[in-house]
Amino acid sequence: MNFCDALNKLPGKEENGLFGKNFLRTWDMSDEDIKAVASGACALKALRDGNVSPKIFDSGIAVSMFSKKDSGMEIAFASGCDLLGLTIIGMDRKLGNSNIKENTAMASYMADTIGVCESDFVEKSSRYMKRIADSVEDAQKNGVITQKPCVINLGSDEDTPVQTIADLQHMAGVFGGIENLKGKKIAVTWAYSPNGTRSLAYPQGLISLVTRFGMDVVLASPEGMDLMPDTYERAEKNAELSGGKFTRTDSMEEAVSGVDIVVPVNWAPFSFLEKRTELSDANLGTYIDLLEHELREKNNEFINWEITEEMMEKTKDGKALLMHDLPADITDINCIRGEMTAQVYNANLQNLFKEAGMRPYVIAAMTILAKSEDPKAAFETIAERATKRYF
Amino acid sequence: MNFCDALNKLPGKEENGLFGKNFLRTWDMSDEDIKAVASGACALKALRDGNVSPKIFDSGIAVSMFSKKDSGMEIAFASGCDLLGLTIIGMDRKLGNSNIKENTAMASYMADTIGVCESDFVEKSSRYMKRIADSVEDAQKNGVITQKPCVINLGSDEDTPVQTIADLQHMAGVFGGIENLKGKKIAVTWAYSPNGTRSLAYPQGLISLVTRFGMDVVLASPEGMDLMPDTYERAEKNAELSGGKFTRTDSMEEAVSGVDIVVPVNWAPFSFLEKRTELSDANLGTYIDLLEHELREKNNEFINWEITEEMMEKTKDGKALLMHDLPADITDINCIRGEMTAQVYNANLQNLFKEAGMRPYVIAAMTILAKSEDPKAAFETIAERATKRYF
Amino acid sequence: MNFCDALNKLPGKEENGLFGKNFLRTWDMSDEDIKAVASGACALKALRDGNVSPKIFDSGIAVSMFSKKDSGMEIAFASGCDLLGLTIIGMDRKLGNSNIKENTAMASYMADTIGVCESDFVEKSSRYMKRIADSVEDAQKNGVITQKPCVINLGSDEDTPVQTIADLQHMAGVFGGIENLKGKKIAVTWAYSPNGTRSLAYPQGLISLVTRFGMDVVLASPEGMDLMPDTYERAEKNAELSGGKFTRTDSMEEAVSGVDIVVPVNWAPFSFLEKRTELSDANLGTYIDLLEHELREKNNEFINWEITEEMMEKTKDGKALLMHDLPADITDINCIRGEMTAQVYNANLQNLFKEAGMRPYVIAAMTILAKSEDPKAAFETIAERATKRYF
Repeated sequence: MNFCDALNKLPGKEENGLFGKNFLRTWDMSDEDIKAVASGACALKALRDGNVSPKIFDSGIAVSMFSKKDSGMEIAFASGCDLLGLTIIGMDRKLGNSNIKENTAMASYMADTIGVCESDFVEKSSRYMKRIADSVEDAQKNGVITQKPCVINLGSDEDTPVQTIADLQHMAGVFGGIENLKGKKIAVTWAYSPNGTRSLAYPQGLISLVTRFGMDVVLASPEGMDLMPDTYERAEKNAELSGGKFTRTDSMEEAVSGVDIVVPVNWAPFSFLEKRTELSDANLGTYIDLLEHELREKNNEFINWEITEEMMEKTKDGKALLMHDLPADITDINCIRGEMTAQVYNANLQNLFKEAGMRPYVIAAMTILAKSEDPKAAFETIAERATKRYF
Repeated sequence: MNFCDALNKLPGKEENGLFGKNFLRTWDMSDEDIKAVASGACALKALRDGNVSPKIFDSGIAVSMFSKKDSGMEIAFASGCDLLGLTIIGMDRKLGNSNIKENTAMASYMADTIGVCESDFVEKSSRYMKRIADSVEDAQKNGVITQKPCVINLGSDEDTPVQTIADLQHMAGVFGGIENLKGKKIAVTWAYSPNGTRSLAYPQGLISLVTRFGMDVVLASPEGMDLMPDTYERAEKNAELSGGKFTRTDSMEEAVSGVDIVVPVNWAPFSFLEKRTELSDANLGTYIDLLEHELREKNNEFINWEITEEMMEKTKDGKALLMHDLPADITDINCIRGEMTAQVYNANLQNLFKEAGMRPYVIAAMTILAKSEDPKAAFETIAERATKRYF
Repeated sequence: MNFCDALNKLPGKEENGLFGKNFLRTWDMSDEDIKAVASGACALKALRDGNVSPKIFDSGIAVSMFSKKDSGMEIAFASGCDLLGLTIIGMDRKLGNSNIKENTAMASYMADTIGVCESDFVEKSSRYMKRIADSVEDAQKNGVITQKPCVINLGSDEDTPVQTIADLQHMAGVFGGIENLKGKKIAVTWAYSPNGTRSLAYPQGLISLVTRFGMDVVLASPEGMDLMPDTYERAEKNAELSGGKFTRTDSMEEAVSGVDIVVPVNWAPFSFLEKRTELSDANLGTYIDLLEHELREKNNEFINWEITEEMMEKTKDGKALLMHDLPADITDINCIRGEMTAQVYNANLQNLFKEAGMRPYVIAAMTILAKSEDPKAAFETIAERATKRYF
């Protein structure tokens, strides 16, 4: 999408539903909100590709709060925020051993955006992000801060909106527009990874989002590898409303047959994650070890849930679009057995990198939409100014 | 204070006593210097609250040297320096295992400000900061650097000028001006914290500063919990000169009776800190463990030195201003027993956050005052330019 | 060198051999390339010393990839990149446990420069850097990135071009121009350090570079402390072509007699480093410990290879220029016995700091040269704009 097309899809004055808002889950956002983020991301990419600087901040802070290292998303956040002129400050901490209100206040004084990544504890992680967002609101209401940062979920226990909106726009780029995704078949399939304790955020977030745009979604997973129950209901309801489809299967082979898009992804079953949160709340560390051991044994039963060249052959014309929320676990590259073979990975490498490359723009678009009453005017100002990014 | 009032209080050409100076201890600064920092902080806050960018640097570095994590002050330093357009670089290291002159040179090449936080070793920490400041001066004298950064103490063993000047201005905001602080009663009282090994910087710095502005200061602490001896002399002399008052008591209850401001703060006795420095110099680590154990036992004797709602009731009209150099140890929030109850903390939360919110502006003001021969003109330029911080 | 002289030596349109290139080894660069980097560094220093901001980027990222802490070079990279307006992001990781292509893609999306420091594994480290550079090229070729960052070697197993070009320009500053280095005598001499496992990058890089400019180079080392064999050949060939000289000796005393410049430097023998890489590839950690123990014993035989005042007396007029790629190991300052005495270090301190102070400018110059088709025009634009760095 070129800059002008993207610009025309952006909300103007009194049309911006995201002004002053946070970005915790896509299902709290309207379809228009989501398209606005996607269009904003496209507009930013078009500008930067044309060596025009979309810096809209003259000083300002972007605070990143990661509970553990996640280089991909960390760099995406830093890159996206830098694009707008914000300085990145890391205030990384574990959930639990901190005074959330106080930490949030310290982070908020000069912040324009706060990115939070915390996915370790199902249900608790989401509450934590919500409390950060509430603390920011309190600080503003009480005059502690005069300019409110938006809070962006960079990966929680239940959703990862930056990744999924990046994916939506990536698919739109490949298939010629979000409207063209209607009826396209996408297989979201559990895949083996030695890690085995991954969060539910990506599979849940993806099926919750794409069912809203009329896609034909099939979710495949081994028996017992369940997501949070409300995810299935949400996906079904979305599909019904959008004229899409949502089905489930326990066969990867069946899932990928004839699809336009394949998404291998590893996750731990919800029942396990729920138990882990309970044990952690009760400070029963040893039982967590036992639980994880048990899970790995279960996980290892499904070592052949792997995207191979044969599996790819079964997709539409044998050349479905492969997507992944990197980093990936790849057989023979960074593990003995992983989500896909090295052949499949290498054949799709540059496309996977393009997909991930949308994340910084999505983050930057979210920040502009949360800070500008009239995003269209903001982008017009950028385009008129036409500051060369370097000379 | 609005921008114009603050601007009028700033020093102009040939009036700026802080040009080219460092900020190690408030007692090395004149009253005019301190008021200039406070006014500069107000002017910066007024600008930012009005969405005007006070960026005065087009590139430039702010180096932070923390000997251990201190998120609050780290973010304050980063936020304040970013406001002026400086990039923050962390060069964190422990005192002792380093070549101070060489490290300082490496940090100084492009630095406009260097923030140092090192409070672990009484007397030694101050000498360390002084050596950094001296090394910067040597580097400039010898042509290694052509533009000299200022050195800012972000917390040492004896003073913490950023925090105390932020507090001075915070009180001035509440009571209608620094001149109105004359005669106001402030209780600085030792309070229990499980930590037990805190530095003397805040209580010493606070009573050393506020006695200069005519306040009626009472210091409360359990027997044996002494500050450095010269602090008492300084506070007494300051009070005498300013028409203020400085008294001591070993009763928290007595201290807070009828006061306008209450400041609970935990510290370790000077005699202990002195011994710890000696043992560390002699590389006697095991003895330090024993000493700290002994201290914790002594500390635990005073577990009921806590600011409770009953204690707050005794203050003037039962509603004294509560101040704290966050982070605080709060009963039932981040410890079993701390400096104040959760009720007291929660009732005063937003005011505590406002107090801490002055720190970034104080740091930024210090940097401008150290770099500008004519700070008034610099601020006038910012105001004329009126660059919107974002659009 | 003043700004105008430096400007005149910069390449203009169609003369810039470094456009779109990387900076991995000086021996992959032409003499003109090297002089262009040195002149660019001088021009940048002249601008900054005159308080003119050479910021050419309006947003943009500089990614640093260090496999271990190296404060000096880390700050140099950050300082140099900030000077141009780039934001620094650390993506530090060890060689070996990572997917190089994927990491490089993540780093490249918004990067204008990527600085890599990895010197632990002889031969392997260089290959790692090469693979990063290749991955960037692939990403561009495949449309993953539209603007290609340059890759800068901040220290590998075989060369350290930032340090050596900084040294070249430092010597040029002292002796009145690069052309005046012709015939100057320089002793690069092994020196004792308790560390004992230092990489070959600096001695190899330095003799490989300065022999190209007609210098009379003598390399001194104890028997068995060998560099990579091709280094000697390269130095000899360079000397022959440039009218310089390259000789070797096993006596420090002999080496320093009558020289204009002395460079003490510690390194581990190539044969040892080669074995260590092999053991590491075979995951034989315990044997590495044994090997390092053996090396330290050998290293300790040469404890009197130290630059003392007596040694300095033997140089030309007793006052040769002392150079070092800081940090240095100095007797009585940060070790019991090191590369030089405290007296020698202190007498040459400010000159050593000036030498290291060229590094940020070299890094910045490399980045401009890699990004600008017409560097001369870029510098002219900076000079015309004449933005004051602060006011």
